[in-house]
Amino acid sequence: MRMVDIIIKKRSGLELTKEEIDFVIKGFTSSEIPDYQMSSLAMAIVFNGMNKKEIGYLTNAMLYSGDTISLKGIEGIKVDKHSTGGVGDKASLVLGPLVASCGVKLAKMSGRGLGHTGGTLDKLESIPGLTISIEKEDFIKQVNDIGIAIVGQTGTLVPADKKLYALRDVTGTVESIPLISSSIMSKKLASGSDTILLDVKFGSGAFMKNIDDARVLARTMVDIGDELKRDTRAILTDMNEPLGLAIGNSLEVIEAINTLNGNGPKDLVELCTKAGAIMLMQAKKVETLEEGMKLITSKIESKEALDKLAQMVKAQGGDESYIYDPSKFEKAKYEYVVRSSKEGYVKEINALEIGESAMRLGAGRATKEDTIDLSAGIILNKKVGSHVEVNEELCRVFTNKEDVSSVLEDIKESFKLSEEKVDVGPIIYEIIQ
Amino acid sequence: MRMVDIIIKKRSGLELTKEEIDFVIKGFTSSEIPDYQMSSLAMAIVFNGMNKKEIGYLTNAMLYSGDTISLKGIEGIKVDKHSTGGVGDKASLVLGPLVASCGVKLAKMSGRGLGHTGGTLDKLESIPGLTISIEKEDFIKQVNDIGIAIVGQTGTLVPADKKLYALRDVTGTVESIPLISSSIMSKKLASGSDTILLDVKFGSGAFMKNIDDARVLARTMVDIGDELKRDTRAILTDMNEPLGLAIGNSLEVIEAINTLNGNGPKDLVELCTKAGAIMLMQAKKVETLEEGMKLITSKIESKEALDKLAQMVKAQGGDESYIYDPSKFEKAKYEYVVRSSKEGYVKEINALEIGESAMRLGAGRATKEDTIDLSAGIILNKKVGSHVEVNEELCRVFTNKEDVSSVLEDIKESFKLSEEKVDVGPIIYEIIQ
Repeated sequence: MRMVDIIIKKRSGLELTKEEIDFVIKGFTSSEIPDYQMSSLAMAIVFNGMNKKEIGYLTNAMLYSGDTISLKGIEGIKVDKHSTGGVGDKASLVLGPLVASCGVKLAKMSGRGLGHTGGTLDKLESIPGLTISIEKEDFIKQVNDIGIAIVGQTGTLVPADKKLYALRDVTGTVESIPLISSSIMSKKLASGSDTILLDVKFGSGAFMKNIDDARVLARTMVDIGDELKRDTRAILTDMNEPLGLAIGNSLEVIEAINTLNGNGPKDLVELCTKAGAIMLMQAKKVETLEEGMKLITSKIESKEALDKLAQMVKAQGGDESYIYDPSKFEKAKYEYVVRSSKEGYVKEINALEIGESAMRLGAGRATKEDTIDLSAGIILNKKVGSHVEVNEELCRVFTNKEDVSSVLEDIKESFKLSEEKVDVGPIIYEIIQ
Repeated sequence: MRMVDIIIKKRSGLELTKEEIDFVIKGFTSSEIPDYQMSSLAMAIVFNGMNKKEIGYLTNAMLYSGDTISLKGIEGIKVDKHSTGGVGDKASLVLGPLVASCGVKLAKMSGRGLGHTGGTLDKLESIPGLTISIEKEDFIKQVNDIGIAIVGQTGTLVPADKKLYALRDVTGTVESIPLISSSIMSKKLASGSDTILLDVKFGSGAFMKNIDDARVLARTMVDIGDELKRDTRAILTDMNEPLGLAIGNSLEVIEAINTLNGNGPKDLVELCTKAGAIMLMQAKKVETLEEGMKLITSKIESKEALDKLAQMVKAQGGDESYIYDPSKFEKAKYEYVVRSSKEGYVKEINALEIGESAMRLGAGRATKEDTIDLSAGIILNKKVGSHVEVNEELCRVFTNKEDVSSVLEDIKESFKLSEEKVDVGPIIYEIIQ
């Protein structure tokens, strides 16, 4: 078997066999197949796609390119969720404690962020003392004891994806449904949970710019999960404006705490209630979405989910007092107010632009080596649909950087106003299963 | 400027600027742009193509990626020809002496062959003593003195193409009109002739399988030449069966000699007469194709072209007596006769298969390191259109290899017979200028 023949086959629009795909992934992982052949094949896949069978083979080949995690030591059904990534997305920090407080097990491996703001791990690390590096046995024990752990991924999980993703990133081959879906699903499947809920975002702040592309990606991933006998479902959620009000690491943790205290922003509460209900259905805790939403809501009202977050923080070495008194979080040196120069209704808060501004304030990484300023970020005062007076606050900006005047200007520009009233859509548009 | 952005731009179907293309070729030649980015861009070009402007920029960037040859030291108009490659293509060995004997200058840099049979240089080297490595000054002097030299390319000519071609070969990105045309034309333009005649072949034994693709390639290359102010014309020629009767290095030299002696096979004579006439028009020696064909024919009849070949061989250190007595060429140890098992008319002699069989007999290289058996090859007794009796000779096979029974079987299979009479088309289908 020769790699060049496989490239030509895919370039010609033909279907690759299981043997060919295994050969590619095995050879690429072991570096026997050079990067320059892999990138050429990836580009051919960008153009000619892959069918359901090929995507299944690819996911499987990647999944078994390294270690896989067994969660057999944890009793009951283990649920997991994954977001395709957006601006202000702190849903995992809310959802995890919520479903765990309902008696469902969440043994989550998460990632760091590259781009706008940090990932879930970076956000968690804004809680003093908390560690995300936990030995396998302690991880299993923690989930058995308190029902939840959110930790960093081990290095040898899906090495093929790690290598392929780095290559795709520099060869213009990121935008491909087969490559994206197999990348996400191979990692999720390797981390061993029984069920997977995928939060597939669309809109200006998401990777998928429109709902149709998001639907195709979601359907593709759900199909992969079904094929490999894991209960996989997806929600299509709006990322045309940031999720919630807070963008930035500790600011988002505080918003997650507020949400578990019953004071969350409408869109985040709606997302977490419905997504949580779906996860409870996947775990067979409830039978209907309504039942699940009711149970989730009760765990916010009773503060049981907040206590669950505090338990997790404590178990992972963090200072749980921050969960009960978020005013303890370190504040950025500078705080600025961005005001509107016009009157009207907010029709758009460009999430991608807001995310990039947050990064420039220090909240995100441009390269892997960058360090994050955990206290930097933005708190929105207005959301899409809000009415704004001249000179009214649009948002507040937190940073330790001295001169951010051009960032403030850009943030203001990210708010688009309209003279007419603006209708606000739901946060979850569709559930795919 | 970032390579990944240029890849994404081309992938998205947008036009690249001169600056972007210069950046790519400069960076790739100096190895600042890694192979894995270049191969990904090449694949995006395979799918999205390039427009006339982009192809011009690409050719120009490659052309100036290394040294260029100045032929200013040679008086008069310098003509050149290039064939896209086929099986049994010894036309340069006939055409060069023909046009030189008409007083036109041919300062040709040629290549070695990879695949079926050797290239023009390999063929020439079957003449004892002849060298194709000649110092620049001697090369210029030889062309001034006798009007012709056919030599090897110097190493630093168009290094971008050398590197890119090697990469395309292993990444499934060979089949692309913009990449093929810029590769051929950058080399031709760098070797400094005033006029270029392109012999673009189509059919089973050619790179382009049908005349439409060949026409697009020819038109693209003629446009590049026009843009860069060189008189460039092209002929579309049939490569559905091998050209002439001989396939193999010394066998083809002998056929070239026979042709200059007035005993050439019909298709080769027709090709060389017309192509030679076009080259004479390009050199402004004649005004019409008819006038040119008459002059070419007269040089065969007078044996002046044969003498010209002998002069060139002598000037390059070769034994000219072989030109006047081709029986001196070393013969292969074994000679086999392939006979027809059926009666009928030859409707196809699959040129690609015949070429591959010739390679297996020793006439070609599978890898750059292989050595060629200059005496190995095939002499056809039948061409498309010929009538064949049961047991009649189809061809003779020459080789120094012991067991070639499976090759003989395959050669026989390459002859397809029909019960009905078969019409034979012309060798040159179109002239593009």
